[in-house]
Amino acid sequence: MEDFKHFVVALSAAAAAGVVSIILVLRWVLYYREGLAWDGGLAEFNWHPVLLISGFIFLNGVAIIVFRLPWTWRCSKLLMKFIHAGLNVAAFICATISFVAVFDFHNNAKIPNMYSLHSWLGLAALLLFSLQIVLGVIIYLIPITPTSWKAAFMPLHVFVGRFLFGSVIAVALMGITEKLIFGLSNPKYKDSPPEATFVNVLGVLLVAYGVAVLWISTRISWKRPNDLLLHTLHASGGGEDDSRVGPSLSQLSDKTDAEVCAEVRKRSNKLDDQTN
Amino acid sequence: MEDFKHFVVALSAAAAAGVVSIILVLRWVLYYREGLAWDGGLAEFNWHPVLLISGFIFLNGVAIIVFRLPWTWRCSKLLMKFIHAGLNVAAFICATISFVAVFDFHNNAKIPNMYSLHSWLGLAALLLFSLQIVLGVIIYLIPITPTSWKAAFMPLHVFVGRFLFGSVIAVALMGITEKLIFGLSNPKYKDSPPEATFVNVLGVLLVAYGVAVLWISTRISWKRPNDLLLHTLHASGGGEDDSRVGPSLSQLSDKTDAEVCAEVRKRSNKLDDQTN
Repeated sequence: MEDFKHFVVALSAAAAAGVVSIILVLRWVLYYREGLAWDGGLAEFNWHPVLLISGFIFLNGVAIIVFRLPWTWRCSKLLMKFIHAGLNVAAFICATISFVAVFDFHNNAKIPNMYSLHSWLGLAALLLFSLQIVLGVIIYLIPITPTSWKAAFMPLHVFVGRFLFGSVIAVALMGITEKLIFGLSNPKYKDSPPEATFVNVLGVLLVAYGVAVLWISTRISWKRPNDLLLHTLHASGGGEDDSRVGPSLSQLSDKTDAEVCAEVRKRSNKLDDQTN
Repeated sequence: MEDFKHFVVALSAAAAAGVVSIILVLRWVLYYREGLAWDGGLAEFNWHPVLLISGFIFLNGVAIIVFRLPWTWRCSKLLMKFIHAGLNVAAFICATISFVAVFDFHNNAKIPNMYSLHSWLGLAALLLFSLQIVLGVIIYLIPITPTSWKAAFMPLHVFVGRFLFGSVIAVALMGITEKLIFGLSNPKYKDSPPEATFVNVLGVLLVAYGVAVLWISTRISWKRPNDLLLHTLHASGGGEDDSRVGPSLSQLSDKTDAEVCAEVRKRSNKLDDQTN
């Protein structure tokens, strides 16, 4: 199955880039920098990049693609929604702790807070991310929300989710730039000491992780089959011509789950060309 | 027409954010900085942000959404492809000149080139953008390319196009961060002089322009009607069940162009929920 191989390659690339990014940021703070501690000093600041990359970026990326993992398609949609929400809440907690670390460090070192574009965009992303979680829980996890509201909000939820994921990576790249300029003095950043090259590579890997996650999350043929089924039925005219839904449903209802998935995949594979 | 109003609001937001960004970057270099010149000094460096924001970011953004402007739907698809390609080539030329400006400045000031993450990602984006233009011209403008190749390459072309647009904005934000740290000495960036706040606002506007362009370019119901027609026919089963295409085509062929567009829009409006 060509399409599945393509999916596994993209997923492996995302996993490799994400995991190596976490290893590199740990190596950065533990080997090149002051290590990790909660002492108000530079070792506390170091929680900022570690928690942002391993938490806000990596966990948020996993949350975005978790519905697309074929190994989860036997799980109920509700369970997957809870996993999606749980991963994002964990990402939010990591991000919040990382913000506390940097505010603590700034206050102890008498460095002003919130003066840089990095800090403006970072705080805006965190606030928008918390709003996204609250609205997502209210609309998709509390069972009283009308289905029409869920459907109407979904394009915005998906767009904002992907946009925030990309934005947080961009903000991290700005933070890396700031830290390398302020943190390297002899030799300076412009003299390309080993640490500078090492952390630049970390930045490139974060971009690679972002590309892979966004690629996986935007391929329609890799959607969770239940959604694809809905999509295919809808696209077959379900919205305006109910007579078309009957035969499609009855055709599919005689098949096993796996056959339904394969059928829906087949019927939806070519949509990518038109809907991207 | 609710959907059209929504489109006009998004387009107006994009236009406002884009145009104000260009005004602000000009104000930055002309009022706060050394102005513009081609003298190997700081005034030559200033072409770098000006050409990147007005060229690489603004023109590329226009190129991305140009197919979605309803006022262009009477123009032939080929003409629109040439406009799309022309805008991107203009963006590429602006970016290239802006790179020359910064290399010239660095060489004259004995500052090393290509040491920062900003420079790595910026050069990578420019190279990938040039590859995207070359492949785009070969595949979509040279009439010998088979239609199947065009369709197969389209998802990648669209994904890379959007990804590069977002990446260039991220790289610009990193560049703004670098410039404010290096360029502000007394008072420093951390002391929030008026220039720092002014340029931070420019950064926020670039993000706003990015959001608006990406929102417009990802709404399926705002696609150029010809594409929507193809999409709807395809989604109605054209790929696997030709019997369904006949009635759709015959129903549509009795109507005027405007009615066809309205019909196709109506039938495709709800796809956003499923395909994002």
